[in-house]
Amino acid sequence: MSFIRNILKNSRSQEDGNFFLELQRILGFKPKKKNLYLKAFTHRSMNIRDKKGNPINYERLEFVGDAMLGSVIASFLYSKVPHGDEGYLTKMRSKVVSRQHLNELGKELNLIDLVISRIPKESFGSNIHGNLFEALVGAIYLDRGYKTCEKFIYKKVINPHVDIEKLEGKVISYKSLLIEWCQKEKKTFNYEIYEDTGNDALKHFSVKLSIDDKVVSKGRATSKKKAEEKASKRAFFAFQGQMTKRS
Amino acid sequence: MSFIRNILKNSRSQEDGNFFLELQRILGFKPKKKNLYLKAFTHRSMNIRDKKGNPINYERLEFVGDAMLGSVIASFLYSKVPHGDEGYLTKMRSKVVSRQHLNELGKELNLIDLVISRIPKESFGSNIHGNLFEALVGAIYLDRGYKTCEKFIYKKVINPHVDIEKLEGKVISYKSLLIEWCQKEKKTFNYEIYEDTGNDALKHFSVKLSIDDKVVSKGRATSKKKAEEKASKRAFFAFQGQMTKRS
Repeated sequence: MSFIRNILKNSRSQEDGNFFLELQRILGFKPKKKNLYLKAFTHRSMNIRDKKGNPINYERLEFVGDAMLGSVIASFLYSKVPHGDEGYLTKMRSKVVSRQHLNELGKELNLIDLVISRIPKESFGSNIHGNLFEALVGAIYLDRGYKTCEKFIYKKVINPHVDIEKLEGKVISYKSLLIEWCQKEKKTFNYEIYEDTGNDALKHFSVKLSIDDKVVSKGRATSKKKAEEKASKRAFFAFQGQMTKRS
Repeated sequence: MSFIRNILKNSRSQEDGNFFLELQRILGFKPKKKNLYLKAFTHRSMNIRDKKGNPINYERLEFVGDAMLGSVIASFLYSKVPHGDEGYLTKMRSKVVSRQHLNELGKELNLIDLVISRIPKESFGSNIHGNLFEALVGAIYLDRGYKTCEKFIYKKVINPHVDIEKLEGKVISYKSLLIEWCQKEKKTFNYEIYEDTGNDALKHFSVKLSIDDKVVSKGRATSKKKAEEKASKRAFFAFQGQMTKRS
């Protein structure tokens, strides 16, 4: 076992025994170069250095991960948005890899649970989530190469979160999109709304959306409008191929 | 043959018959998806559009190429500069992929000779060289994938042009580096200078650099200092492994 891996492993407490188990669950594959991942979850406050005195923490991996996200999203957008020029594609990419979005991605994966730090986790700003996500992407690239890294980005970023229509700002409301489609396809539609507070203190509404007299989706939220939008969005994704001819 | 490839090929005159021959010489491999390269050398002034009306020129490929250059250089610097933090690595990368450097790379490969345009080539600004280089890198990635693209970037950018010591601004003078090394290694050195104007109208100097009484390199320039620096630099690269312990 390498020198670096030894110090990194020793810095983790007994409770971190599940580190690689949890990591593998997130990655969907077994890490090979384990010290890269240990590094990706080591905060600078740990003040760990290698033999030559170089600091070991996730910050340098962020640099690599940021670049890989940039490349994978760039080639995705190149093929998905054939009408967009260079400036437009750049703008779309910066929406996908915005600080806020990266933070959401990191939070979703609970990456902060894996980090070791001398600073209490509660006192971190929200950017740590995105930074850890970038560092993890960097570690994956350096461990397994571009293809695996690309696959991970598709699985965690593009497939679940990147909606070209929304990015292009063309979808103002899923409800209007749905109604438009129904009219074009000569289908009937109906939003059935009822109060459904359930166990919540706040008033809630539920909606059943039927197309051609068949319930296709449901939505529940704190306002009628929001509930309708939720149900419409779900129906939109269910019928996606049929609703958008753009490819 | 695809619709796009047809229009792109028809836009090229008979003299462009050598396009793919010349391209293959630059690439070092045979292009597969030929229309990508035709696109990479089509200027927007040609005003070519696909069936759906989307403009076809190299600008969108620049976006992809820029991202790939960013990734490949990022992972190269990550491993070559272990002491550099995120900000430092970012700064170094921007030196490598600076507008000026990309223009030099494009010019070196004479990419402008391959472009088709309605604007006379003389009236282009110097940025076209760099833009074509980026577009070519983008086309290589989309044609052959990351590995081949990475190899191309190493061959054309990193190996011949990226000198970490210089980028770090640590080498102020190769002469001082060489003298320092000779002293450490207990070697004698000698710069033999003589006027060597040859066929030039301007006064020139030539230098022979000997180490342990053996001529190891030569340099010729318009000043003694410059000639010495040239010879030192050549010796430095000849002895590189021995002079720098950094890896």
